[in-house]
Amino acid sequence: MVEARTTGPVRIVGTGLLGTSIALGLRERGVEVVLADASPTHLALAVDLGAGRRAVGTDRPPLIVVAVPPDVTATVITAELAAYPEAIVTDVASVKHAILDAVTASGADTARYIGSHPLAGREKGGPLAARADLFEGRPWVLTPHGGIRRRDTADIEDLILDLGATLVEMSPAEHDRAVALMSHVPQIVASVFAQRLMDAPTSTLGLAGPGVRDVTRIAASDPDLWVQILGANAEPVREILLAYREDLDRVIGTLHPSDSPGVRRRLAEELSVGNLGVARLPGKHGTDKRFTTVIVMVHDEPGQLARLLTEIGEIGINLEDLRLEHSPGRQVGLAEVSVLPGVASRLRVELQKRGWRIAG
Amino acid sequence: MVEARTTGPVRIVGTGLLGTSIALGLRERGVEVVLADASPTHLALAVDLGAGRRAVGTDRPPLIVVAVPPDVTATVITAELAAYPEAIVTDVASVKHAILDAVTASGADTARYIGSHPLAGREKGGPLAARADLFEGRPWVLTPHGGIRRRDTADIEDLILDLGATLVEMSPAEHDRAVALMSHVPQIVASVFAQRLMDAPTSTLGLAGPGVRDVTRIAASDPDLWVQILGANAEPVREILLAYREDLDRVIGTLHPSDSPGVRRRLAEELSVGNLGVARLPGKHGTDKRFTTVIVMVHDEPGQLARLLTEIGEIGINLEDLRLEHSPGRQVGLAEVSVLPGVASRLRVELQKRGWRIAG
Repeated sequence: MVEARTTGPVRIVGTGLLGTSIALGLRERGVEVVLADASPTHLALAVDLGAGRRAVGTDRPPLIVVAVPPDVTATVITAELAAYPEAIVTDVASVKHAILDAVTASGADTARYIGSHPLAGREKGGPLAARADLFEGRPWVLTPHGGIRRRDTADIEDLILDLGATLVEMSPAEHDRAVALMSHVPQIVASVFAQRLMDAPTSTLGLAGPGVRDVTRIAASDPDLWVQILGANAEPVREILLAYREDLDRVIGTLHPSDSPGVRRRLAEELSVGNLGVARLPGKHGTDKRFTTVIVMVHDEPGQLARLLTEIGEIGINLEDLRLEHSPGRQVGLAEVSVLPGVASRLRVELQKRGWRIAG
Repeated sequence: MVEARTTGPVRIVGTGLLGTSIALGLRERGVEVVLADASPTHLALAVDLGAGRRAVGTDRPPLIVVAVPPDVTATVITAELAAYPEAIVTDVASVKHAILDAVTASGADTARYIGSHPLAGREKGGPLAARADLFEGRPWVLTPHGGIRRRDTADIEDLILDLGATLVEMSPAEHDRAVALMSHVPQIVASVFAQRLMDAPTSTLGLAGPGVRDVTRIAASDPDLWVQILGANAEPVREILLAYREDLDRVIGTLHPSDSPGVRRRLAEELSVGNLGVARLPGKHGTDKRFTTVIVMVHDEPGQLARLLTEIGEIGINLEDLRLEHSPGRQVGLAEVSVLPGVASRLRVELQKRGWRIAG
């Protein structure tokens, strides 16, 4: 068992995906965890999963994690601060400023509250979707405010590091602006564009390629959760959306059937700025290194892709990423194999020697 | 060798990605191909790749495919119609109405011109990126107009079917509206949102997750090509963008810090319409069936993913799709294995028996 930095028991309020995942991660490191949830079903499930034991009145947890839906987070934090006057309390909601405001307004002892937000999640919620390693390598933002002592922050930092997450410190307002840009506005951009698909003829939908699928993928997210998140971060989201709309208007202004060179140059410049913007997103390993993609044709039969990957392993090249693209209606797919740039041409040569058809 | 429906020689003007891929596909079926290109480098490369022979003055091709950039497509079509007065001419540009208009305005013999558009492409262009199977299973839209004879259409249909594509028939205007929605507007939505990343602090960019990456992925596309496409389809694109902006304005109007239930309900409804919209996109095999995803933890070492896929093959379950997700900075990834819904729970059980950690 890995030695834990965190001293238990840690009380976790809310045994959904995040709460139960934190609990499982701490249990895996031998930290005592006590669980509470307004839903007896979730609580029973989390206990059965080995996430910890039920909380009892005599618990004296030094650290409390509130992992309930955004709408009720401030209320629960306030109640926990009052019920456990010696505990440090954090939460994991994806908005931070509005919650700190509400906790402060309640007259609670905010010197013992430090908000945080792990950027980890899944399409599915609930304790059954929980995993001890949900936070491994993910950013976890800690949002200290003026009224706290650094040694109290340290306890939460230990918990974050125990769970394998990467600690990032921001003010609550900085955090909210950051997630507005990296998460909340993309959600709206996707959801609003997906509305345009409602009236499309079936023949039009049949032309869908990877582009429209990528742009709209997150439009499938849970509206109930997103209403809570967006409602609690309305101002930063609104501000970015207004700037986005201004950019959009400028681009709409360049859309003329006329091929006047000035208009075309402006449109090309707009698209180039988009090129530069997307290039700023860090690489998948948290760095800026880029991979080279080798595209291999794979027949859609059990074992084919396995054979490909076995042979890549035999060649001794590490796979950095993999995507499989199907041709609609056909039983042939393309495996997009990402490798470090230095080994891509060797991989192409070796795979071709072994009879694979390289498509790029 | 597969028996070809197409009677050669087919003359292909433009030996970029699409032209060379068509040529390679036809050569694979034994059809004679003659090649022309304004770029001697591209032409020489395509000939070297086995895509066909150089065109000579005595060629009498019954069928000509114009595969040059959108900007010069109409001019080249007009020239080809004049130079080969007995040939049927098609093109593969991703806009159709403006090209037909320009060809008609030139006074050319439009009874022998029928536009078409294969929905296949790659991030890379040029003859070196070409593949004989580029069109397999992809939609290929044929856009006949009032002035043509059906038997001339049939020759182009044969070529499309020979290349393994799925034939779709639309009017030029229908086609342009369809690709505006499924391709051109998503491109602008992504490119314009990606502009917002330009001013983001590095700490903000470090919070990037799969959502913002998906939404912005196509913002990396080539501005030069897109200026030509968008310029030639300005009206349909503009119309959809104006409707999108209206939807966006309505959603911006629901973003208030106030938690008035009416405003929240409206926002939830907007997001739900987005849910319904994205659900209308057909499944990857061209049908509406949905797959179930099984998420498996995979250590980022050569051979690990191969072992997983070998064992899935041994279990006898066919992989419908696969995505690999890395945790930033860590050497552990998640393989998202898509399978038919009926076999997902058996797959989970069997993989767990073999020691795999199932994350969902």
